[in-house]
Amino acid sequence: MKIGLLTAGGDCPGLNAVIRGVVLKGDRIYEHEFVGIKGGFRGLVQDDIVPLPRQRVRGLSKVGGTILGTSRVSPFDHGGTERVQEVMDKHQIDALVAIGGEGTLTVARMFHDDGIHVVGVPKTIDNDLSATDRTFGFDTAVSVATESIDRLRTTGEAHSRCMVVEVMGRQVGWIALHAGMASGAHVILIPEVPVTREQVCGWVQHAMDRGRAPVVVVAEGFSFPGEEQQADTRQADALGRPRLGGIGEQVTRLIEEQTGIETRNTTLGHLQRGGVPSSYDRVLATRFGTAAVDAVSAKLWGTMVALQGIDIVNVNLRDATSALKTVPRDQWEEAAILFG
Amino acid sequence: MKIGLLTAGGDCPGLNAVIRGVVLKGDRIYEHEFVGIKGGFRGLVQDDIVPLPRQRVRGLSKVGGTILGTSRVSPFDHGGTERVQEVMDKHQIDALVAIGGEGTLTVARMFHDDGIHVVGVPKTIDNDLSATDRTFGFDTAVSVATESIDRLRTTGEAHSRCMVVEVMGRQVGWIALHAGMASGAHVILIPEVPVTREQVCGWVQHAMDRGRAPVVVVAEGFSFPGEEQQADTRQADALGRPRLGGIGEQVTRLIEEQTGIETRNTTLGHLQRGGVPSSYDRVLATRFGTAAVDAVSAKLWGTMVALQGIDIVNVNLRDATSALKTVPRDQWEEAAILFG
Amino acid sequence: MKIGLLTAGGDCPGLNAVIRGVVLKGDRIYEHEFVGIKGGFRGLVQDDIVPLPRQRVRGLSKVGGTILGTSRVSPFDHGGTERVQEVMDKHQIDALVAIGGEGTLTVARMFHDDGIHVVGVPKTIDNDLSATDRTFGFDTAVSVATESIDRLRTTGEAHSRCMVVEVMGRQVGWIALHAGMASGAHVILIPEVPVTREQVCGWVQHAMDRGRAPVVVVAEGFSFPGEEQQADTRQADALGRPRLGGIGEQVTRLIEEQTGIETRNTTLGHLQRGGVPSSYDRVLATRFGTAAVDAVSAKLWGTMVALQGIDIVNVNLRDATSALKTVPRDQWEEAAILFG
Amino acid sequence: MKIGLLTAGGDCPGLNAVIRGVVLKGDRIYEHEFVGIKGGFRGLVQDDIVPLPRQRVRGLSKVGGTILGTSRVSPFDHGGTERVQEVMDKHQIDALVAIGGEGTLTVARMFHDDGIHVVGVPKTIDNDLSATDRTFGFDTAVSVATESIDRLRTTGEAHSRCMVVEVMGRQVGWIALHAGMASGAHVILIPEVPVTREQVCGWVQHAMDRGRAPVVVVAEGFSFPGEEQQADTRQADALGRPRLGGIGEQVTRLIEEQTGIETRNTTLGHLQRGGVPSSYDRVLATRFGTAAVDAVSAKLWGTMVALQGIDIVNVNLRDATSALKTVPRDQWEEAAILFG
Repeated sequence: MKIGLLTAGGDCPGLNAVIRGVVLKGDRIYEHEFVGIKGGFRGLVQDDIVPLPRQRVRGLSKVGGTILGTSRVSPFDHGGTERVQEVMDKHQIDALVAIGGEGTLTVARMFHDDGIHVVGVPKTIDNDLSATDRTFGFDTAVSVATESIDRLRTTGEAHSRCMVVEVMGRQVGWIALHAGMASGAHVILIPEVPVTREQVCGWVQHAMDRGRAPVVVVAEGFSFPGEEQQADTRQADALGRPRLGGIGEQVTRLIEEQTGIETRNTTLGHLQRGGVPSSYDRVLATRFGTAAVDAVSAKLWGTMVALQGIDIVNVNLRDATSALKTVPRDQWEEAAILFG
Repeated sequence: MKIGLLTAGGDCPGLNAVIRGVVLKGDRIYEHEFVGIKGGFRGLVQDDIVPLPRQRVRGLSKVGGTILGTSRVSPFDHGGTERVQEVMDKHQIDALVAIGGEGTLTVARMFHDDGIHVVGVPKTIDNDLSATDRTFGFDTAVSVATESIDRLRTTGEAHSRCMVVEVMGRQVGWIALHAGMASGAHVILIPEVPVTREQVCGWVQHAMDRGRAPVVVVAEGFSFPGEEQQADTRQADALGRPRLGGIGEQVTRLIEEQTGIETRNTTLGHLQRGGVPSSYDRVLATRFGTAAVDAVSAKLWGTMVALQGIDIVNVNLRDATSALKTVPRDQWEEAAILFG
Repeated sequence: MKIGLLTAGGDCPGLNAVIRGVVLKGDRIYEHEFVGIKGGFRGLVQDDIVPLPRQRVRGLSKVGGTILGTSRVSPFDHGGTERVQEVMDKHQIDALVAIGGEGTLTVARMFHDDGIHVVGVPKTIDNDLSATDRTFGFDTAVSVATESIDRLRTTGEAHSRCMVVEVMGRQVGWIALHAGMASGAHVILIPEVPVTREQVCGWVQHAMDRGRAPVVVVAEGFSFPGEEQQADTRQADALGRPRLGGIGEQVTRLIEEQTGIETRNTTLGHLQRGGVPSSYDRVLATRFGTAAVDAVSAKLWGTMVALQGIDIVNVNLRDATSALKTVPRDQWEEAAILFG
Repeated sequence: MKIGLLTAGGDCPGLNAVIRGVVLKGDRIYEHEFVGIKGGFRGLVQDDIVPLPRQRVRGLSKVGGTILGTSRVSPFDHGGTERVQEVMDKHQIDALVAIGGEGTLTVARMFHDDGIHVVGVPKTIDNDLSATDRTFGFDTAVSVATESIDRLRTTGEAHSRCMVVEVMGRQVGWIALHAGMASGAHVILIPEVPVTREQVCGWVQHAMDRGRAPVVVVAEGFSFPGEEQQADTRQADALGRPRLGGIGEQVTRLIEEQTGIETRNTTLGHLQRGGVPSSYDRVLATRFGTAAVDAVSAKLWGTMVALQGIDIVNVNLRDATSALKTVPRDQWEEAAILFG
């Protein structure tokens, strides 16, 4: 079989480990041939496709980024299934392995509905897919955020300041929750749980009163009740640049104004999605990769691989993309018990 | 309720995060009082017990080791249940939270059978308890091993040498398997899977022939078929010192002698169980801690906390200690496909 | 002798290692007694002074921040030398060890002129003191910046984006220069060297044309010729908050607008001054500490310790604070050869 | 000019950064052509030489190992200068840049005496060359050792054990001294300073008595007075394998036997010379590289580059290799004040 691989959507530590897993097992066990599709779906519609021999994937398990490149181009803006099938036919590609997040997996499902052979590999640094216990990249992001907060805490303590850290998470707060728990934050603000300005200032003041330098972790998608950040406004910057005056800045100003405590914001941004993947993510990504090529070989079209407990399983793409995995309120409350 | 905490057995990153989780939630939600039992069961029979107020556990989530100290002392060599009950009565301790590995949890189960109120928290750096998907400490150990192998690989390549790395795992090979997968090892040797000398040398030679510097990860409990390391011999050193000429050294000599390839061994040893816990382990340990104090408050005596999927659950101590979770052969074979 | 220690100005990794070095050697060799002055010069004028026995400094070499706290309070706004002498007399403090940057050392020199016994220890994360080859904190800051840029580069490559990183350095560009060299940046912008918008865009475009994801490192104090950032404007925010729309953001927008290349900014900010000090900084800070207590014992009032080659020497505070050590143009040009 | 580069002797973090510096500046500024000599002097006598265009060195500043490979082959065992000149003539190589330690630089000096154009770049992880303040690789080695000791300390404290760490340093103790100071060791043993068994046990017992878990850092070349390790014995293993029962093991047994304190040894070995170089080493190596190609272009044959203060200078190879830079006794004594 000749199989095309692509990585689409945002960069995520572990993508190369998936590619390596797919190609090494596919070559050794199934004798498949592989090609790499450059820049996500862009390469599929623009016919930007390169050979992907096993030599090309050596040593990749620890390399950040993706050797195939990625983009947010939608194939449906550029000829759709018809064009995709045309390019696949030209290269005699029998099947696709599409590595990406909710958007990518939705496209994969639509391809499958249109008869294209495709298997998905879930990728989301936000860990927000309900069909899998974990996604690779999330552990690395939490690690980077946790180490950063550990650093920031000492400087907060030296100056008796409150330190605010804005982490990723537009729709879900998993990174904020885990990094906040790991670093012993005094406040964790996530999109799923409404918290008032008064509560935030109260927790900060309470920590300060006990001699601590308060640490506030806020997911970029958090907003105070009654002031939901407008999706439109947030995406007003067509180039997708990190918005000036994000929620981290807002929370920082709020705390200073309401409590008089000197407060500093740090927005971690892209630091969380680059660099060497953690060992956890390398193992999970590698297992996803070898399982994906098994699924292709078993012609489990329209499925994606997933982690359930300690097993890698195949789930229907339709189920996989139907619901976002948000932080349950009781998990946040469990963390909130440790605030202060 | 007045609750005594103890940590027993080998040190493990995350112990302090468990202690913190138990005490903070216990204080805030249940208004329990806590005491710390020093040096594992030793403190329980020797009456070495200190107050453990919430101030004492601040900032502990990222601190390696255990503020309570630990030991391998068995209470049954020092008066057994009767003496334990006596000390608990003296301090008016209503219940114990025992944090430890298989041995500790077995003692806890025996305490429970004798009517002592006890809840367990599983701790094993080897990840070998069947009742829980993961244990804290394991992720940190795999991270340290993986980073070490990443370092060793570059020096192997500079010198065209084979690098052997001996990692922990007397009875199970989870650390070797995961660190080996994460670092792209060419050979992974674990106690569960028999591999011959010829196979090892063959894989090493094969990697060398393709221009790679071979990396061999071997669990300390691995032995070649027909030459099982004797448990008695291995523990001959009453002080528990790392044996000279461990399996890493043996494999190193074998490879040099059989292939002529210059080979070096590194035994990671205690590096794998010390230091700052990974963010994964901090979160898991914290969740175990808060769940353990819930179990105490619900009087779920004779149970321990466990991770199943993404949930923390309570399982019977009897079930928890009945079977070792070994690496299934097919998981090793999956990894072996990537060898070379 | 009874000696008071204080840390003033911005937080810097290694402060605690200095404190430990002073106290341990002072206790063992000279049998001095030590007190800690809390919050920099604030504690000196407000009489916020605590005992500092050797037990208090154990294990501090690797701890970030400062156990004494710090502030930017000037003693000359609160009674000046007279008040300082009064507090010192009350506590029978014979001499001060003042650990701080240019401002702190200038105050120390003025104290010395007024007859107060004082020895300085230079501290500047920016490495901008001409009297010493290096200051502690700088190596940690460069390390954090370098690791961050390493991470950002992979995500830049995955998306074919230009990554801009704003690092510390209001007046000098040492952090930018070293982190840029260490990470192989394509553009390094520092306050000392004027560079035009056209040059920046040219270098970025050139790197992009050769298939690289351009990396731009910019010191916070850089500005384009003819548009010097106004000191007044920059400090308009009385609370000292990181300014929105700093130079990193400006350079990011410039590149996007002029080249059309998707560009992202990351402002590292306080990450660079918190956390565990590098081993280099721990050693240098420890050596500074023991040398400072030698200087006190030798009554070398009005001096500070400094690194020259591999030796710690004593230099006159007057000389030490007279000139800023800026990046020589030829060193920047040397780095610029490697751009692209 | 056509210039050949080689790396010889033991692997060292930063070698690739030197290569990159030489080639990038040489290409851009001087329009030299470069070839890489594989496996140190082996490639020079065996004619194993490859082109080294600037594309080949991209991104190398952070890569451990050496892309040219290295070996300990002496050219004088394989035809000497005559053969070297023959191979250089065949490839029309005008000059050599030899990157290596004392042995390599001595060979370079002998080449120079015989009329071969050569410039040296000093490389020693041990930091033992008197002509340069620092060598690259040393900072990385100290960092790895320090982080390892930080990890080991926590497990020592949990078990109330003494932890012994054997670090590199056959003839000099710089790594042990700096890693020991950075990590707050209670005992530092180096080849330069005789220390008795009684002293070691006394320091360990003293630390234990004050409630600390003693940490002992020992350089591999240390020996107790009257029992100097025999150079012959030490090198008995022709394959250069780390000796079983090295000094770390000996010290461990001594402490256990004499004090009864449970003690564990960890031998860091090759971990110290592999992996990603620290930012300090990347900058120093890069500066050495660009300065070396300047020296070649200025025809400063028979010199090597060196760090003096903050400047890179050229020194005579003859002077550079005449004396080993050992740890002065007073520097060790300064560190010893902090023991315990």
